[in-house]
Amino acid sequence: MRLQDVLQKIETPDRQLRAKAQARLDRLTKPVGSLGRLEELAAQYVMITGNLAPTVPRAVVFTFAADHGVALEGVSAYPREVTPQMVLNFLRGGAGVNVLARHAGVDVRVVDIGVDYEFGDRPGLLDRKVMKGTRNLAIEPAMTRDQTEQAVMVGIKLATEAVREGFGLIGTGEMGIGNTTPSSAITAVMTGRPATETTGRGTGIDESGRLHKAAVIQQAMDLHRPNQSDALDVLMKVGGLEIAGLAGLVLGTAAARAPVVLDGFIAGAAALIAVGLQPLCREYLIASHCSVERGHRIVLDHLRLKPLLDLDLRLGEGTGACLGMDLVCSAIKIYTEMATFDEAGVSERNT
Amino acid sequence: MRLQDVLQKIETPDRQLRAKAQARLDRLTKPVGSLGRLEELAAQYVMITGNLAPTVPRAVVFTFAADHGVALEGVSAYPREVTPQMVLNFLRGGAGVNVLARHAGVDVRVVDIGVDYEFGDRPGLLDRKVMKGTRNLAIEPAMTRDQTEQAVMVGIKLATEAVREGFGLIGTGEMGIGNTTPSSAITAVMTGRPATETTGRGTGIDESGRLHKAAVIQQAMDLHRPNQSDALDVLMKVGGLEIAGLAGLVLGTAAARAPVVLDGFIAGAAALIAVGLQPLCREYLIASHCSVERGHRIVLDHLRLKPLLDLDLRLGEGTGACLGMDLVCSAIKIYTEMATFDEAGVSERNT
Repeated sequence: MRLQDVLQKIETPDRQLRAKAQARLDRLTKPVGSLGRLEELAAQYVMITGNLAPTVPRAVVFTFAADHGVALEGVSAYPREVTPQMVLNFLRGGAGVNVLARHAGVDVRVVDIGVDYEFGDRPGLLDRKVMKGTRNLAIEPAMTRDQTEQAVMVGIKLATEAVREGFGLIGTGEMGIGNTTPSSAITAVMTGRPATETTGRGTGIDESGRLHKAAVIQQAMDLHRPNQSDALDVLMKVGGLEIAGLAGLVLGTAAARAPVVLDGFIAGAAALIAVGLQPLCREYLIASHCSVERGHRIVLDHLRLKPLLDLDLRLGEGTGACLGMDLVCSAIKIYTEMATFDEAGVSERNT
Repeated sequence: MRLQDVLQKIETPDRQLRAKAQARLDRLTKPVGSLGRLEELAAQYVMITGNLAPTVPRAVVFTFAADHGVALEGVSAYPREVTPQMVLNFLRGGAGVNVLARHAGVDVRVVDIGVDYEFGDRPGLLDRKVMKGTRNLAIEPAMTRDQTEQAVMVGIKLATEAVREGFGLIGTGEMGIGNTTPSSAITAVMTGRPATETTGRGTGIDESGRLHKAAVIQQAMDLHRPNQSDALDVLMKVGGLEIAGLAGLVLGTAAARAPVVLDGFIAGAAALIAVGLQPLCREYLIASHCSVERGHRIVLDHLRLKPLLDLDLRLGEGTGACLGMDLVCSAIKIYTEMATFDEAGVSERNT
């Protein structure tokens, strides 16, 4: 499998299918359009999958973990060892994403794509380590072009295999101390907005910490001059391994004609890269929520995505994606389980 | 059981419990506050129930059905027979609320509190009919004061019994062709806003229909002069039977120290009545979503409630409440199932 082949495999979904799905939704026992965004979700699901009589899909969230050389610049409120510690927490089922995934009936797959730690053989951990964390993007490119492509391919392969295995709904998750820094950098480059606007407080730094972080990002952009029209160049110079994996997950899922439910800001940055590589994949995206992290609104507006939830979340891991996937499943059940006016013998509206 | 006794039984929840719950939430393996409104919900649940070690509650939505004399004024897009037809649809499990309740693991209880139809003996239907629909509020008070109190007591008793039975989370639902008209009237009276602002398009009338509806409401208000400081007077003159039942459900649930998850605009109007009767019950309310129906935003602002979801819903029945109850259960699981920093051996933030 080559990246170019995957990009070429992604197609524009057939809008007639969405119209057909909406026609069925309009026959259900409710005023037309009265289930609002649940109806939109159901119609989008039908359009993406091409199946006018869908069943509720099995859902899985991939939580990619990686470290970041830029953490040395003091951009995070937490020490770097938290990345592997949280990976172990995911494997034991004690983290936020585990709780919300269990609640929603979503599988969690934890992927080491670049943690600076030797996990050894850990049941449940997918070892796809490309390197032990990125280099410090403040002083050198985060990765080589080969490493970047390799990390993207990890995500593509996981998505491809998951859909082949029978999963019909894929969610994005991540863990990586420092990873709002590359995400803010990517957002600045891909949307053209200044780093001071795309940079937020991450896990909880103060305002002076935020300004320092924005300055580090601006310095990296001045140094590397990432090329906005070459998303792999951006990813390589100011990105991260889990962000690359997530971009691949988006592309692989779209190529397999399944929807991707995005989590928060880091997922949004990965989506900017994926859409940069193949604009058609935008149609396969569902934004689960709008994060407190300030750059996320910029990403969502740029991608013209309207988030389903606005619950002041800023944890990541895939927590918001799990809540969003639950709503997608609700929407599909509305489409498949509600009675029509005819079936229920309910009168239609006055003309 | 007398209404006055129930009103007196409702107490201010102990805010120290909320602070204690937040202290536990702050020890969980996530940055402080990073699960946003889920954390608020969990802390509110602990405060309301007084249980610092809660389990996930059994949840039930009560869908009250009733008819409205004012439907004769041409205020709805649907014919009146749809009320009993939809009740039968609820009993067969084919309506929107059934689908979303099954998805969320919520029981649905359908209550005939005033439908203008003889259902006979229908398994699953709770026969609590007070009268066969209200009178036409455009020309006479919707109910007598006795009928109004009787309908409120129906809701109180159902809530009291449900909590006694073991339900820990109660949702509101309704069905009644014409019922956005009394809801808009109640909202206008209780918030002091003009009827033209509190009146929306309901199930789908056009702008001229909306203006006609607002005129009918204004006429009723001019005729009856409902007394804002006497919520039962407002309910009796321009209310509805299901709205009275819902107001009782709110009061009964608060008196039993359980949270009430409000659905949309009709539930909001009922909450205005309940809060009018006993302001302390506001603390027990959780607003599931903000409806497309324009008066709902006015209600939520007046009650100082921030809705969890904004999905352009306007169906009613309890559909939004089911989605909201699912989020409350997620929040409780975050509180009870996530590992703490100590348990997981995860490092805390840099100081």
